[in-house]
Amino acid sequence: MQERPFDLLNKAIGQQVLIRLKNGTDIRGKVTAFDIHMNIVLDNAEELEGGNLKAKLGTILLRGGNILFVSPV
Amino acid sequence: MQERPFDLLNKAIGQQVLIRLKNGTDIRGKVTAFDIHMNIVLDNAEELEGGNLKAKLGTILLRGGNILFVSPV
Amino acid sequence: MQERPFDLLNKAIGQQVLIRLKNGTDIRGKVTAFDIHMNIVLDNAEELEGGNLKAKLGTILLRGGNILFVSPV
Amino acid sequence: MQERPFDLLNKAIGQQVLIRLKNGTDIRGKVTAFDIHMNIVLDNAEELEGGNLKAKLGTILLRGGNILFVSPV
Amino acid sequence: MQERPFDLLNKAIGQQVLIRLKNGTDIRGKVTAFDIHMNIVLDNAEELEGGNLKAKLGTILLRGGNILFVSPV
Amino acid sequence: MQERPFDLLNKAIGQQVLIRLKNGTDIRGKVTAFDIHMNIVLDNAEELEGGNLKAKLGTILLRGGNILFVSPV
Amino acid sequence: MQERPFDLLNKAIGQQVLIRLKNGTDIRGKVTAFDIHMNIVLDNAEELEGGNLKAKLGTILLRGGNILFVSPV
Repeated sequence: MQERPFDLLNKAIGQQVLIRLKNGTDIRGKVTAFDIHMNIVLDNAEELEGGNLKAKLGTILLRGGNILFVSPV
Repeated sequence: MQERPFDLLNKAIGQQVLIRLKNGTDIRGKVTAFDIHMNIVLDNAEELEGGNLKAKLGTILLRGGNILFVSPV
Repeated sequence: MQERPFDLLNKAIGQQVLIRLKNGTDIRGKVTAFDIHMNIVLDNAEELEGGNLKAKLGTILLRGGNILFVSPV
Repeated sequence: MQERPFDLLNKAIGQQVLIRLKNGTDIRGKVTAFDIHMNIVLDNAEELEGGNLKAKLGTILLRGGNILFVSPV
Repeated sequence: MQERPFDLLNKAIGQQVLIRLKNGTDIRGKVTAFDIHMNIVLDNAEELEGGNLKAKLGTILLRGGNILFVSPV
Repeated sequence: MQERPFDLLNKAIGQQVLIRLKNGTDIRGKVTAFDIHMNIVLDNAEELEGGNLKAKLGTILLRGGNILFVSPV
Repeated sequence: MQERPFDLLNKAIGQQVLIRLKNGTDIRGKVTAFDIHMNIVLDNAEELEGGNLKAKLGTILLRGGNILFVSPV
């Protein structure tokens, strides 16, 4: 059967992802929940700059509308 | 059962959260209410700059569309 | 029962609020009406700059989509 | 009965209003029609700059999505 | 009966209008069609700068979402 | 019968059009498909700058939300 | 029968595409899934600058709202 885009998020539950935001920020963390708006909860989220840790954010609920792409890491 | 993103907000009722806005502003306060648009009421809200208090805002109703992420603190 | 965000606006009818807009402008006035889009009518509305009066606006109908937050004062 | 925000527009039919746009422009004119999207028709519309007449626009149909606020004058 | 904003467009069929876009561009032409999204087809459309002809655009289908206002000329 | 804006796109099937994007870019190509969101497929699409060829894009599916106007050429 | 824009994406399954984003970034990769919002999953995605490889992104789920156009390569 044809894959659907949200299957990627479903498989990412419990896994690390890198999320690039529209404003250029990269955030990395472990997916624990998501919904159809692409709102995503990340555990141990970290803000990255040039691939290096800039700030530890802890658990965050990220609004889907800010996302450019999500990538499993 | 699978967690859903808004479960994070539900557990945050009565708790302190940090909210980063799309415009880069950080706001901290105690969640007293939220809805499906992610509109959130915060008590004793404070605007932060570089992690330090910039202004006390009191009770605020924040429009969900301005939010980048919400993080329990 | 759980509070809902718009309860704050309902209680604000007849009261002064401070509204911060997405463009950074602060507007203060007395709420006389609102709807589910957060469109708000303010009486004796004033535009503030650095907390000081910049311009008297009289009665205004403010489109909800421009609002960052509403705060009772 | 509780006022609703669009009651202000209804009362403004045939009256002068000042409309501030999101881009900072002020437009003044007489309201002849409006709809639920806050699209508004103004007769004898004028563009203002610093409160002074910048350009006469005649009759205009203004898209509601550009509006910051509407104020009876 | 109360006028509605789109009545202005209906009367403008076959007539010249000036359309100011959100990006500040002025476009002039003869309306031949429109829809509820304010998408508008103009014949002999011209782009203006400071009221002078900048470019002839021919027949164009303009997306309504780009419009600031429409004015019969 | 009254023309509708999308009739222009329907007649443009198999024809060259010039599309101006919101970001100011001009794209030229032959329309092979479109939908109600104004998503458009162009064959032999070319990016223009000052009316001159800047880049050949081949076949593209252009998202309607980026379009300022479409013009048959 | 008339082609529809999403037929292009359907034929692109398993093929390389170039996606230009609204922010000007070019991304290349193999389409494995898409939906009606134009959310697209790419395998072996690469970020390009001036046509040259800037960064390997691996598998990404790209939000449709960020897309300017999609082009088979």
